[in-house]
Amino acid sequence: MTKLNSEQDFLTLIDKYFPSENGHVTLGRGDDCSILKTGKDLCISKDLFLEDVHFRRSYFSPADIGYKSLAVNISDIAAMGGQPCGFALGLIVPPTLESEFWEPFFASMSALAEQHGIILAGGDLSGGQYLGISVTVWGESAGGRFLSRGNAEPGDVLFLHGPAGMARTGLLSLEENATYALKNYPQSTQAHLRPPMRVAAGIKLAESPDVKGLMDLSDGLARDLPRFLGNCEGNVGAEISLPEELLHEEILRYAESKSISAAEHAFQGGEDYALFGAASADGFAELAEYIPGLHKIGTITADNRITLNGREYTAGGFDHFSG
Amino acid sequence: MTKLNSEQDFLTLIDKYFPSENGHVTLGRGDDCSILKTGKDLCISKDLFLEDVHFRRSYFSPADIGYKSLAVNISDIAAMGGQPCGFALGLIVPPTLESEFWEPFFASMSALAEQHGIILAGGDLSGGQYLGISVTVWGESAGGRFLSRGNAEPGDVLFLHGPAGMARTGLLSLEENATYALKNYPQSTQAHLRPPMRVAAGIKLAESPDVKGLMDLSDGLARDLPRFLGNCEGNVGAEISLPEELLHEEILRYAESKSISAAEHAFQGGEDYALFGAASADGFAELAEYIPGLHKIGTITADNRITLNGREYTAGGFDHFSG
Repeated sequence: MTKLNSEQDFLTLIDKYFPSENGHVTLGRGDDCSILKTGKDLCISKDLFLEDVHFRRSYFSPADIGYKSLAVNISDIAAMGGQPCGFALGLIVPPTLESEFWEPFFASMSALAEQHGIILAGGDLSGGQYLGISVTVWGESAGGRFLSRGNAEPGDVLFLHGPAGMARTGLLSLEENATYALKNYPQSTQAHLRPPMRVAAGIKLAESPDVKGLMDLSDGLARDLPRFLGNCEGNVGAEISLPEELLHEEILRYAESKSISAAEHAFQGGEDYALFGAASADGFAELAEYIPGLHKIGTITADNRITLNGREYTAGGFDHFSG
Repeated sequence: MTKLNSEQDFLTLIDKYFPSENGHVTLGRGDDCSILKTGKDLCISKDLFLEDVHFRRSYFSPADIGYKSLAVNISDIAAMGGQPCGFALGLIVPPTLESEFWEPFFASMSALAEQHGIILAGGDLSGGQYLGISVTVWGESAGGRFLSRGNAEPGDVLFLHGPAGMARTGLLSLEENATYALKNYPQSTQAHLRPPMRVAAGIKLAESPDVKGLMDLSDGLARDLPRFLGNCEGNVGAEISLPEELLHEEILRYAESKSISAAEHAFQGGEDYALFGAASADGFAELAEYIPGLHKIGTITADNRITLNGREYTAGGFDHFSG
């Protein structure tokens, strides 16, 4: 097991797991900057992933942290319909953190990077009181265009690629009792610890002229849907339908155990990193055939109301008397 | 004074100080990614700037922190001979930090960004225990090429644009007694709090075919010179000369007060963000005329020794019997 006593030890370990150059990066790590060969426009995103804010070490393994800190950034590229190319990594390293943490952390991060063909192009190391991972990732358009949020109009279909509410079920049950949660909610806890990436689906969506707009569900439909609608022309709204048959058995079971509405719990969501977007109603059936896992969850409406299964939702919550 | 009670308050304040789009950024903040229009290769760098690791709030004003957190990144672009274009900003915001901190912080950061024509293209906000600023910056080549470290050969001139040892004088005196330091070492403390940027000089250096390699002095000559030499072919060394007439009066006065060697103190350096590089001996005189402030501090040698004013320097320090 590598002991990490200096910045040089870290850099050596990073070099063990991450190649330094490829066709995209013509000058790799170790200089003041890296140099990127950019034939096309780039999309770029940056996310912090901090101990006790975004993850807990009590139930995130080092490998989970390595995976998810990069994954939440890759998801932003997928949400543009982009092909991720490279990333830069900032690490805040508490002096008390055991050296054994880092091998599985880097191994897991590098496996995800390799899977998507993206290169670690540089970064920065610093001491600090809490473990923190700061990733900046960039990508190119694969489908000829990037997809931004919104751009939809009344009548368009709202779709989801991936679940709503799974990761929230995992998070809440992990926070309550991690051992119980991992045993009784295996797929939900996995959805929180290791959300799957949807790069291939994002690229296919960008290739289709029927798709109007796209984003990833990082904060849940309740917060992300109003952002999506806010980027559409006019005061549009949405009718969302999350029937029980669309919700995972673990969500239904969790909601029942808490005597809460499974659909509202799924609508609150958060950290699912599902792709959420809008497509023309005419083209959607063909699109759903072309992209396995894509399913309709609603429609854009001409008023500025949001409803879930017929009940109105406002920033204050659900109106349980409106349905 | 703006009160910042939510992420939206932060975003509103950021929008007040930073334009969202320009010719370089075709889709600005507020989506999953920003989109960059890239006609040329990019150079990219990422630096963390953390409370009580890189700065102290006891003697850094909010405006100093806003300035320096971006400046240390811009300096990496200058060190490549690049023209900075844009940056992404990650903020770790302690809940205890007073709202009044942020207006001068953003005002100062945005003034520096505007001065260099660079756009804030996106980022991330998070809570956390300690104030932290994570910047990723990118740039294009202005002079037709980027300059990396090293690439020099015996006989080449080693040059500096900017001081060596000023910021260290400022840091050490500020750590000892900030009030006394600000009064008695005004230029050194300023060099630590607000290191000047050398983008224009970097671009001119990249334009000259006589320049072999370039970097910025972030860790001081003692640590950065071996890195520079390590990127040259063969086992080259360096003879460095830092005579008293080259050192600032404050450095000489500080060294005298501590009974230490002023030249060795300047050689240790750190955080000066001066540009340090190598040029062919034939072309250097003309280069120094073309770039005000550029001065020779040494020569690349054919052995792998480093000497300062004739005394040998090794990783263990100076050999005071070799001179």
